[in-house]
Amino acid sequence: MNELASFPVIAHSRVVLPEGLALDCGVTIRPLSVAFRTYGTLNAARSNAILVCHALTGDQYLAETQPVTGKGGWWANLVGPGLPVDTDRFFVICANVLGGCMGSTGPREEMTDEHGTGLGRPWGTDFPTVTVRDMVRAQKKLVEHLGIDTLLAVIGGSMGGMQVLEWAATFPGAVRAAAPIACATHHSAQNIAFHEVGRAAIHADPEWRGGRYWEDGRIPARGLSVARMVAHITYLSEEALTRKFGRRLQGANAVTFLEDVFQVESYLRHQGSTFVRRFDANSYLTITRAMDLFDLGAEHGSVAKAFSGTGTRFFVASFSSDWLFPTSESRAMVRALNAAAARTSFIEVPTDKGHDAFLLDEPDFHRALGGFIRGAAGEAGL
Amino acid sequence: MNELASFPVIAHSRVVLPEGLALDCGVTIRPLSVAFRTYGTLNAARSNAILVCHALTGDQYLAETQPVTGKGGWWANLVGPGLPVDTDRFFVICANVLGGCMGSTGPREEMTDEHGTGLGRPWGTDFPTVTVRDMVRAQKKLVEHLGIDTLLAVIGGSMGGMQVLEWAATFPGAVRAAAPIACATHHSAQNIAFHEVGRAAIHADPEWRGGRYWEDGRIPARGLSVARMVAHITYLSEEALTRKFGRRLQGANAVTFLEDVFQVESYLRHQGSTFVRRFDANSYLTITRAMDLFDLGAEHGSVAKAFSGTGTRFFVASFSSDWLFPTSESRAMVRALNAAAARTSFIEVPTDKGHDAFLLDEPDFHRALGGFIRGAAGEAGL
Repeated sequence: MNELASFPVIAHSRVVLPEGLALDCGVTIRPLSVAFRTYGTLNAARSNAILVCHALTGDQYLAETQPVTGKGGWWANLVGPGLPVDTDRFFVICANVLGGCMGSTGPREEMTDEHGTGLGRPWGTDFPTVTVRDMVRAQKKLVEHLGIDTLLAVIGGSMGGMQVLEWAATFPGAVRAAAPIACATHHSAQNIAFHEVGRAAIHADPEWRGGRYWEDGRIPARGLSVARMVAHITYLSEEALTRKFGRRLQGANAVTFLEDVFQVESYLRHQGSTFVRRFDANSYLTITRAMDLFDLGAEHGSVAKAFSGTGTRFFVASFSSDWLFPTSESRAMVRALNAAAARTSFIEVPTDKGHDAFLLDEPDFHRALGGFIRGAAGEAGL
Repeated sequence: MNELASFPVIAHSRVVLPEGLALDCGVTIRPLSVAFRTYGTLNAARSNAILVCHALTGDQYLAETQPVTGKGGWWANLVGPGLPVDTDRFFVICANVLGGCMGSTGPREEMTDEHGTGLGRPWGTDFPTVTVRDMVRAQKKLVEHLGIDTLLAVIGGSMGGMQVLEWAATFPGAVRAAAPIACATHHSAQNIAFHEVGRAAIHADPEWRGGRYWEDGRIPARGLSVARMVAHITYLSEEALTRKFGRRLQGANAVTFLEDVFQVESYLRHQGSTFVRRFDANSYLTITRAMDLFDLGAEHGSVAKAFSGTGTRFFVASFSSDWLFPTSESRAMVRALNAAAARTSFIEVPTDKGHDAFLLDEPDFHRALGGFIRGAAGEAGL
């Protein structure tokens, strides 16, 4: 499991932009690669495009088989022909985030110098600090490359929701409708703390080797696995964990010192060990840091100022048992949007599935989001 | 930090009981060592003894300087002359739990064979699985050794509270008053999951070496540190973390790839690195497992049956922002005690300090617990 070779190399569809991208930290990365997938057909007026932003460990394979895991797309229940985000009507774009490990510029890709010349080794930990705004700027370049001036909608959950907010704040004229879901306008101290545990676990793995694990062909699988385990707990509600596992034992009288005793342990270890086959440790460090740095209010003076004078319509959704991004944070977001006189609708979806609910079959959520998008499309004359 | 030599060897006061202890798992450990401290004076009637049970990473140095850290006792604000647990009136006993690393029989102590002969190496991972009931049985032997038939009170928080419940259920005639604080009658799936992350982090540290780290004189400091970090987050409320750290940065513009950026990160790393100097990794594995196995209802058919016909008085306390052992679990405990017709009082202490509140200066809690103990003492004719 620790062999780098077990991490598949895949030719992702991508655009390579020679001019690169100037980052918030002051570094310019060039060229800029943005790996992406599209679904549906762009209309002649180029007015039916919807950008979907993925979460921390998501990717651009939104509504189709993920090439590494062989599993279905992470939002295939929401995006597709006849679904709430209807690919018979809309042109849906999803890009791998800057700093990711599925083909966009990030720590796994070849490092380049200031002239864009490849240096024959991965960026690794030399990859600069990126922000959620940098991710959004990279997506903007992709959208422009596709010849699209205005997006009908930008939607996403969790870190995807942070990108939605940043899109609406940074490019208000380019976003008709924005749906930030299961997110917040800043990352809380508790969320930063959980990320820090994950990063500490990666740093503690001797295979990490200061981030230069690619040099000896191995990956810090144990550390990354622990990081995934702790994150996974925060994605589920206490109720969901109890319903799934309760205190059920793995086997009768399986009370031994070293083995997993409870089913929940075996499940978490499985989550950890499958994750390391599809995700890069340095990307995990890069992207968690970007989330932790996210603070829209601090960037703009206040959240209301970030959206002052906006013409974008907003749909905010939270999930009642989500303790990672609790409803109280969505309510604060809605208050700020109201203060900015933005047209905003808000639902709290009753569910006991925790943060993960935004990925699951939640009919109330799907109906409301579908209605919001149809409304925005009608307003756009589609 | 990884050197075993940095882990100080201390001569703890203890009793060594040659007959040993038969454990729930079927193994008999002999001899049984119980390290303990006492405060105050046992009266002639031997009727003024209060046993305090410590939490996961606590120890017997309740109300005096802890010899490893040099810091004050963990309940020095509650136990002492004139304090709610008044050592001018009561004889207070606190023992290191079975499986611990402060002098009681546990993974750090010398392994013995079935005849009690020392084998010249630590138990390490050969130490058998212990339960909270085993811990309590070991304490009972200490209490008998001290010539005490009946304890005026048994009190403790968190895992200490689990021991209190087990004392009252297993030795009802020996406990006049019981105060289980900030605990539950079983460990939840979420709590098990957080423990499992900690154990996985220890297992992932190559210095752990399958638990035989003592063989090469090093300790799995990085893994144990990560385990402590994740546990520490669960001890604090979101509010406490935010108040302590918010999103404050360590230094101006400290946006780099590898360094701690936020104060909360630096704090957690400090928590982790100081912990490894005072706690043994195999003890951590042993004791977290004991907590996870704790399920009073399953042991007795139901929680109410565990206390059926009890003459013990109960004082149950929870803390409003404790999400590790939420008030709902204390309420369920109180309902079961009521169903068993036990005399029970209950308070939920309003606080934003999270689970850790049971260790902190919470005047409402201290007043209520002090009153409960004075009431029990009055009833006992003291």
